[in-house]
Amino acid sequence: MSKQTNKSCPRVVIVGAGFGGLRAARALGNAPVQVTVIDRRNHHLFQPLLYQVATADLSPADISMPIRATLRRQRNTEVLLGEVTGVDVEGRRVLMGDRTISYNYLVLATGAQHSYFGHDDWAPFAPGLKSNTDATQLRREILMAFETAEIEPNPDKRQALLTFVVVGGGPTGVELAGAIAGLAHKSIVRDFRHINSSTARILLVEATTRLLAAFPKSLACKAQRELEHLGVEVKTGEAVEEVDADGVVIAGQRLATKTVIWAAGVKASPAGKWLGAETDRAGRVIVERDLTVPGRPEIFVIGDTSSLTERGKPLPGVAPVAMQQGRYVAKMIRRRIAGEKGRIPFHYRDKGNLATVGRSFAIADLGVIKLSGFMAWVAWLVVHIFYLIGFRNRVLVMIQWAWSYLTSQRGARLITEERRQ
Amino acid sequence: MSKQTNKSCPRVVIVGAGFGGLRAARALGNAPVQVTVIDRRNHHLFQPLLYQVATADLSPADISMPIRATLRRQRNTEVLLGEVTGVDVEGRRVLMGDRTISYNYLVLATGAQHSYFGHDDWAPFAPGLKSNTDATQLRREILMAFETAEIEPNPDKRQALLTFVVVGGGPTGVELAGAIAGLAHKSIVRDFRHINSSTARILLVEATTRLLAAFPKSLACKAQRELEHLGVEVKTGEAVEEVDADGVVIAGQRLATKTVIWAAGVKASPAGKWLGAETDRAGRVIVERDLTVPGRPEIFVIGDTSSLTERGKPLPGVAPVAMQQGRYVAKMIRRRIAGEKGRIPFHYRDKGNLATVGRSFAIADLGVIKLSGFMAWVAWLVVHIFYLIGFRNRVLVMIQWAWSYLTSQRGARLITEERRQ
Repeated sequence: MSKQTNKSCPRVVIVGAGFGGLRAARALGNAPVQVTVIDRRNHHLFQPLLYQVATADLSPADISMPIRATLRRQRNTEVLLGEVTGVDVEGRRVLMGDRTISYNYLVLATGAQHSYFGHDDWAPFAPGLKSNTDATQLRREILMAFETAEIEPNPDKRQALLTFVVVGGGPTGVELAGAIAGLAHKSIVRDFRHINSSTARILLVEATTRLLAAFPKSLACKAQRELEHLGVEVKTGEAVEEVDADGVVIAGQRLATKTVIWAAGVKASPAGKWLGAETDRAGRVIVERDLTVPGRPEIFVIGDTSSLTERGKPLPGVAPVAMQQGRYVAKMIRRRIAGEKGRIPFHYRDKGNLATVGRSFAIADLGVIKLSGFMAWVAWLVVHIFYLIGFRNRVLVMIQWAWSYLTSQRGARLITEERRQ
Repeated sequence: MSKQTNKSCPRVVIVGAGFGGLRAARALGNAPVQVTVIDRRNHHLFQPLLYQVATADLSPADISMPIRATLRRQRNTEVLLGEVTGVDVEGRRVLMGDRTISYNYLVLATGAQHSYFGHDDWAPFAPGLKSNTDATQLRREILMAFETAEIEPNPDKRQALLTFVVVGGGPTGVELAGAIAGLAHKSIVRDFRHINSSTARILLVEATTRLLAAFPKSLACKAQRELEHLGVEVKTGEAVEEVDADGVVIAGQRLATKTVIWAAGVKASPAGKWLGAETDRAGRVIVERDLTVPGRPEIFVIGDTSSLTERGKPLPGVAPVAMQQGRYVAKMIRRRIAGEKGRIPFHYRDKGNLATVGRSFAIADLGVIKLSGFMAWVAWLVVHIFYLIGFRNRVLVMIQWAWSYLTSQRGARLITEERRQ
């Protein structure tokens, strides 16, 4: 059926069109291969800004790009929308239910999902943030908490509705907590008549001793002070011991809340199981230095799905790692097809680390240079606009950021999903 | 609980924050009344552009505005998110489940919903377009039809997936059919490898003898020619006799299709039942010349929920009628509170009628002046931007229109909802 079917032309199957998979596909655009990109969603998602969809700043379409549109000009590339169910390693075939797709090279870039560390029963009460559907549902929950509080006569129930708990003090947790505080304490303050949304409590709970473990302590401290300045109660060194419909238990203390958001941990997608390969504790496939699976030089695993240690430290699960790995893998496949011998190991080039807190503060760890405050926020802004895919998305996001910066309003305050009964 | 509780200050309850209800609420902003606006959604929706959400041009947030944000500056106004379940006419109370809200004046502006003319069993197979949720689900169905066709080996099934039937030749049906044709025949043509989306069939079926009954025949003919030019098959004088999971029966002929969209008819919301008032065939409350319910001068019914005949013709169910009625009702309530006697009848001032076909063609019936083509489309553009609420939405919609006009691309091609199994 495929127009590109050609025996002499090897087929590269890429599963997942996130940062890693999409970069690999693009870098194979004019290579003498057939490329098949499989994803269960029709769009590439710019996950670093997903928290802004959850907090009503941006719309899902602003941070998404149809995979087909991104790859339309690559005549050697086809895109399949569907769910991969396994890999026949011996037969070199990807399984999609009844269908199979043969490959000569396989790139698994299937990302990560939430992990509740053995407490999967918490999931319904503490949703995480990985997809546009997650984000719009979370937006709905956050906005509905204020709406329900407005008509709730019982003061205890009202206080529970106006209490928001973010679990996990990594960049996502910090950014979410800051954005919810901005929403509650600024954007919607004048919109209600019976509640004062500026009295809403926003708690950020981190089990380890400090926020933002990936950053130097001095920067993390500054981020924490800025969060507290925005009205977030930061609790470090306190573990969440229970989550249910009525609230959470933090370090032995029960707290009544209706909105708990999970930003505490991820585990890899089931790619390791598909391959029967060795994985680390988070389910990531332990790969060789060239990102292949041991004993399977035709299978690459990249991004959040793979585990690689450099200079004694595991590579972090961030977009730059996935993007560099995607480009690297495309280069390796080209080399091998060209018959070049010798393996070149992958090296991650760390260009720095950014995290934002609220509307005009960020921290930036650029190796020797460490920034915090407004200048770091401008850097954050420039980097995020630059890496966002598509001219249209860049313009729309810039305009919406300018608008919300100037007015403190949120442009996407929509409750669209059906309400729970 | 309300800060505005004040015995000497009458309470106006407005149910529904569409074009009519919102205009009434705004026009009562500085009146000596307490205003309570009740809606089951948190946002006002600019329905005339909803078809552009369904066809992936705009995002829901671009054509929506939080009701609270719109009315935040009116200190005499509160907004309640909730579902009205009835009206206690004698007790002058609106019922919301267990809650009741007393009123001195009641404005019912609850709009309309789809009507399948006694064939409610068609609803699951022929969704209509009234809310953002409808629109994103429809977008999902339309986009999924192409995705499923791309991987469908059976040519008959593929053709059914690439056949789209729009039922109803009013403005919504015409705009939808034109937009789907533009999507299939232009925007996504280069995105697929196994199907040719330009071979997709788009049918517009209208049971009466011609499209756009509200327009003069000459203009409607031009719109039909433009639709046909865009590749839409227009079938007038042919009724849809059956809709099921496999397709439709049109004038005795079965046609296999997976996507049927209902734009054929509406019925009023249940306001007439709440009041026990006389209604017309479509369930609209037959109101007095001052838009009150006969014998109930404190209850106004406006917009698509009311039925009023002027110069022998019923007023159409369009936004300008609802907006003028909203402002009129606010004026009448002010007059009565001021103790002025005498009833002034409502008169609709028809400023004209616009409908668009595809990306650069519209028809405009401005009374003496009748326009079609590019100039009418520019008029359509200006009017729609002007009436869209919110500076941010105007800027975002203009940019997205400019972008899609120049590139033929659709910026909101997202499949976000869960897939049906």
